[in-house]
Amino acid sequence: MKLKPPKGTRDFYPDDMARRRYLHDAWRRVSQRHGFDEVDGPIFESLDLYKIKSGDGIVSELFHFKDRGDRGLAIRPEFTPTLARMVAAQANGLPKPIKWFCTPNLCRAERPQRGRLREFDQWNIDMLGEDGAIADAEVIAVAVDLLRGLGVGPEQVKVKLSHREVVRQVLTSLGVPGDKMNDAFTLLDAKDKLPPEVFSEKAKALGLGDEQVQRFETLCSQTYGVGEIDKLRNSAGIEDALDDLVAIDTALAGFGLSGWCVYDLGIVRGLAYYTGTVFELHVTTGKERALGGGGRYDKLIELFGGPSMPAVGFGMGDVVLTNLLEDENLLPENLTQPKPDAYIIAVTDAGDAALPGVVSSLRFAGLHTRMNYKATRKVGKLLKDAENCGAKFAVILDDDASNGNASVKDLATGDQQSISIEGLANHLQG
Amino acid sequence: MKLKPPKGTRDFYPDDMARRRYLHDAWRRVSQRHGFDEVDGPIFESLDLYKIKSGDGIVSELFHFKDRGDRGLAIRPEFTPTLARMVAAQANGLPKPIKWFCTPNLCRAERPQRGRLREFDQWNIDMLGEDGAIADAEVIAVAVDLLRGLGVGPEQVKVKLSHREVVRQVLTSLGVPGDKMNDAFTLLDAKDKLPPEVFSEKAKALGLGDEQVQRFETLCSQTYGVGEIDKLRNSAGIEDALDDLVAIDTALAGFGLSGWCVYDLGIVRGLAYYTGTVFELHVTTGKERALGGGGRYDKLIELFGGPSMPAVGFGMGDVVLTNLLEDENLLPENLTQPKPDAYIIAVTDAGDAALPGVVSSLRFAGLHTRMNYKATRKVGKLLKDAENCGAKFAVILDDDASNGNASVKDLATGDQQSISIEGLANHLQG
Repeated sequence: MKLKPPKGTRDFYPDDMARRRYLHDAWRRVSQRHGFDEVDGPIFESLDLYKIKSGDGIVSELFHFKDRGDRGLAIRPEFTPTLARMVAAQANGLPKPIKWFCTPNLCRAERPQRGRLREFDQWNIDMLGEDGAIADAEVIAVAVDLLRGLGVGPEQVKVKLSHREVVRQVLTSLGVPGDKMNDAFTLLDAKDKLPPEVFSEKAKALGLGDEQVQRFETLCSQTYGVGEIDKLRNSAGIEDALDDLVAIDTALAGFGLSGWCVYDLGIVRGLAYYTGTVFELHVTTGKERALGGGGRYDKLIELFGGPSMPAVGFGMGDVVLTNLLEDENLLPENLTQPKPDAYIIAVTDAGDAALPGVVSSLRFAGLHTRMNYKATRKVGKLLKDAENCGAKFAVILDDDASNGNASVKDLATGDQQSISIEGLANHLQG
Repeated sequence: MKLKPPKGTRDFYPDDMARRRYLHDAWRRVSQRHGFDEVDGPIFESLDLYKIKSGDGIVSELFHFKDRGDRGLAIRPEFTPTLARMVAAQANGLPKPIKWFCTPNLCRAERPQRGRLREFDQWNIDMLGEDGAIADAEVIAVAVDLLRGLGVGPEQVKVKLSHREVVRQVLTSLGVPGDKMNDAFTLLDAKDKLPPEVFSEKAKALGLGDEQVQRFETLCSQTYGVGEIDKLRNSAGIEDALDDLVAIDTALAGFGLSGWCVYDLGIVRGLAYYTGTVFELHVTTGKERALGGGGRYDKLIELFGGPSMPAVGFGMGDVVLTNLLEDENLLPENLTQPKPDAYIIAVTDAGDAALPGVVSSLRFAGLHTRMNYKATRKVGKLLKDAENCGAKFAVILDDDASNGNASVKDLATGDQQSISIEGLANHLQG
């Protein structure tokens, strides 16, 4: 009998945990230097909370259950509803802009596959209370800075941007009526998965003629770089929404993100709550799911009972990111748990007697200290153990421990000297 | 409408999160200097996994649900079953002793009350593969070092120790038959909650005479200090199990824990899987629930399909610990999110144009950088914002930004000077 973790979940043995910490530390470091404060919420929420944002359709994607009072609860599949609830509850007391990050574990009742697990970690960056284009650009800059810090370059990952309102105006100018707009977005979202003739057929069902269908296809297959936004202006009947995208274009260039970003009006992010910018991070090989995505959601805080408040943010999971770093050999070698400063070896009865006191005084001084538990007295064998665990120093306790002395071996240089036990912590820290 | 977190769970706004991080960082730091490696597992496990250790009775204390394949799952109420599963699965490949720590969030379907929530964090320390008394003492030393590091002293918290086998032998010598041993342990566990006459009555039901009942009462109400273990030897008919406790006594003294520990044979830790030492950490006022507890569980890895393997460990939750630190004023003042190194202010159009570039170059250099989003040009008001957010430096971008210069104000000293934008990161880091 070997018991396994549940389907789609992971055990983190020490080496796995070191890799997980490496990502979490990077997420945290980047978030903090961009001025985001850390928050978190419960691992489960009221089932109704998730329906507020996503409707009843979300229930089948959740792990849900009831408490003793028969209240419906669900393990969090995303952090945004919790964030919206928390912001709405204290909206007036929080200094603006609200800049929050978190790195929660989330669960979805999905079929596990490459890039998608039932439990995963997700980095969330959200900025609320600021409606300027600089907020959209700043949030994208955080995502890019994370990637850059991990050694990923713009030749490996691109931020694909679109704008809900721009797309809506284009579709309107093509002749899509208001009551078919959701269908048009759904079709746009599904385009890559549909054969061209099915796409055309469905586009015609929106009430478009042959020429309009062709323009629709062109629209969502062309991409533009930062600074090329005017090409979009010339090619389609976009009204005032483009001004917003032009401001974002300027801000993106200002933050030095031109090389990382492309406009791609085929990016939709489902039918979710986005109101302006939407973006996804994609590996340029096209072989992986999106690394993450987000956008502007200016109506959400109201939906959760708060005041009207502009908001922009994104989420980035750990699964696709880890796949990318592994495939590109970007995970540092020897990503392990911390190595000991000192490894203590007792080789006589007097050494055994001194051992716990020496070990605890070094630890109390803040030194990462390990020790030998074996019954053997063979110094050579025990020094091997000290080396194998990666310790900087071996401290050998023999009969001289009764006189208050230990033998200290620098395992890098091989130098060995006698040091008073009293001065040991100082010596090893020096 | 103000939406709340589910009953017994918590929202962590930035200040709450800073407090939570303070505890987690302390847990991690202490674990690492004592030579423990970090691990983690899934947030939910098979419902059956929890029954292996705790029987069917556990189910009502769990938040449990089914996946689409109708498999019973439960949110983890503790980490030990996951740890046992993970160790059992790779028992032969893991270097011994296995020294693991983790700080998972756990959930229990209990009635929330002081010191007990439905979701909480728990620090776990476990050492497997080493059966010597030094392992028991080392594990207790980790718990004590955590408390000491947080400013807690032995006058505020005591480690109360007992030993399952010692108690069993005492009870046997009193005349408790083997088939009533579990009942006797249950009675011992409940003693503090029972009126004396009810305790006596239940003790008699175990088959004890008046004198034995009195000795039973005495046994579980007397305490002994480290070094006083021989008093126990004289007062009760304990056989070889006491030798184990004597060895632990020596190791506790060796680790410098004498002042922190008392033997208290009234400590039972429920009917759980412990086989030797059991201990709990209690505030000396007696006003709180146990801060944490643990003991030796030498049979558990076998129960989860692994080889026979000695093991000792403990868990410490964050709820009672936080109550203690708050009541004793031991939480550092101004426990907040990190403060910015620099706060950037643009006060002219040329300053606005330079802003994103300056901000991103400082962040890229690793400096925690925030900026002003307001439309105002009033330097005095903006400098106030910089001070209010705790920044070290304010960087003012005005028309001189076109010449590549910024004005830097040290917000502690009030000194202000002009610095080239190119050399800004260096200047602020210096």
